[in-house]
Amino acid sequence: MERYVCGDCGHIYYSNPKIVVGSVVVHDERIMLCRRAIEPRKGFWTLPAGFLEEHETPEDGARREAKEEADCEIELDALLAVYSVPRISQVQLMYRARLRNSLFAPGTESLEVALFAWEDIPWTELAFPSVKWALNHYRETKDQAVFTPGTNPLV
Amino acid sequence: MERYVCGDCGHIYYSNPKIVVGSVVVHDERIMLCRRAIEPRKGFWTLPAGFLEEHETPEDGARREAKEEADCEIELDALLAVYSVPRISQVQLMYRARLRNSLFAPGTESLEVALFAWEDIPWTELAFPSVKWALNHYRETKDQAVFTPGTNPLV
Repeated sequence: MERYVCGDCGHIYYSNPKIVVGSVVVHDERIMLCRRAIEPRKGFWTLPAGFLEEHETPEDGARREAKEEADCEIELDALLAVYSVPRISQVQLMYRARLRNSLFAPGTESLEVALFAWEDIPWTELAFPSVKWALNHYRETKDQAVFTPGTNPLV
Repeated sequence: MERYVCGDCGHIYYSNPKIVVGSVVVHDERIMLCRRAIEPRKGFWTLPAGFLEEHETPEDGARREAKEEADCEIELDALLAVYSVPRISQVQLMYRARLRNSLFAPGTESLEVALFAWEDIPWTELAFPSVKWALNHYRETKDQAVFTPGTNPLV
């Protein structure tokens, strides 16, 4: 295992997989997407999501990311999916959520934020595969109170 | 946010929450527990679990930990629970699993490994709260093909 050691103090920095937390946020049966203002995939549409911070629960992290990226208050409903991207050592926890009110606006990392009816989702302009997976798993389970969280599709 | 910067190269090492992966492993309706050979909580019983490694999926990590701690082959069945311990910046993904055969033995981090009937579980000698939570959520959902993964109990 590769390790980073500080030249000054000898402290070993273990490199670990990172956790991304995010949400499929719904309002009036439309789904929130954010157009990315930053790389990677600048200009493409994504779910409000980002890296979990130290001493933060995944649920708090998902709410914080919605606030930061779409300036909105959300209520989490269920764990929608757990995706992993081992190539980049990432585990994503995606929640099913709703807007607490109809207010939202682009945060600094978003060019725009919009609510899309299912038939209007810009499928060819989604930023990451897991955005598509999460949207589809939301669609399949949206009327179910109890369901199995999604995982990566078998390839 | 506190950051570590290498004195030699200036590289910033972000400190992120860590992912623990583990399993409630069942065989003949008995549940596998491992008695810890290492601190913290040496001598107490735990589930086969440990830190997810770089470029590893959570499922692969859970299987690896069962192999390392109990020298057994397991088959994952479902995501049992997602627990978080924000005080120590930890997120735990716990799976429901079964032994592929009846073979198991203590790994280097276990003093002993044993299968317990529900009524024989050493509740007062469990290593961590989340071990108890996972065992109880397993018990509540073990006959359900579709269920909601457990989360931290409300406190």
